[in-house]
Amino acid sequence: MDPRIHTITLAVEDLDRALTFYRDGLGLESDGVIGTEFHDEKSGAAGAIAMFHLTGGLVLSLYPRTELAKDAGVPYGPPKTGEFSLGHFLSRREEVDQLVDRIGRAGGSLLEKPRERPWGIYSGYVQDPDGHLWEIMHSPFVDPDAS
Amino acid sequence: MDPRIHTITLAVEDLDRALTFYRDGLGLESDGVIGTEFHDEKSGAAGAIAMFHLTGGLVLSLYPRTELAKDAGVPYGPPKTGEFSLGHFLSRREEVDQLVDRIGRAGGSLLEKPRERPWGIYSGYVQDPDGHLWEIMHSPFVDPDAS
Repeated sequence: MDPRIHTITLAVEDLDRALTFYRDGLGLESDGVIGTEFHDEKSGAAGAIAMFHLTGGLVLSLYPRTELAKDAGVPYGPPKTGEFSLGHFLSRREEVDQLVDRIGRAGGSLLEKPRERPWGIYSGYVQDPDGHLWEIMHSPFVDPDAS
Repeated sequence: MDPRIHTITLAVEDLDRALTFYRDGLGLESDGVIGTEFHDEKSGAAGAIAMFHLTGGLVLSLYPRTELAKDAGVPYGPPKTGEFSLGHFLSRREEVDQLVDRIGRAGGSLLEKPRERPWGIYSGYVQDPDGHLWEIMHSPFVDPDAS
């Protein structure tokens, strides 16, 4: 398998709320909700989705939890946090604190205030409005802009 | 916020089983389990983790579900699928079928056999041994090697 992930799709309760958080709150660019004209007759899944084209070619998508369940053929269930975490590195510790604050103001919530971890990073955890984890990090050994 | 995700960490039940699946089964390169010397006194989280450095700079990590819960400060809970999905594009439809088969042989399981979807892709869904979703896709309009 080619060592590549092309897309990360987050299951969300409310597409507009999640889009507002990531686009308006965090400043990620998006064309907004697209694909509303599509409907999969076999699974019943609707096509409406919001996408963010990130640096490096990765696409972050927001897709309703109900529809992802239908599309993937898994049972629908209530949200559960802790299945995965997305990580974001910054160049300075102060930027970690600032981004964690910004996420809180944008509608996310703080879980773990940034602090030194024994494995050599300074990081804190937040969650988006759907409970998806983000670890905001700084390491003197990681250049956030390196590809 | 810089439009970038640097790491994706999957919560896993058994670190060795997950490593075997992704490294030996799917052929992703890894140095194996690292960080066993670390332990976070504050949260109680152990540092042992396995990493895969993917194309484009993204790092895929495997981390025990118990430890991610401690590290992030969220309640530990049993696995739940459907919170997110990782997507992988291939150049040809046949390659989608082949990778889905390979994932099944490696210890993953098939959820949705590859088929045409109304939004213009040919795709199927599988899950890894921990239930994490992967959508294996082909689109005539997506070059899997484009950055």
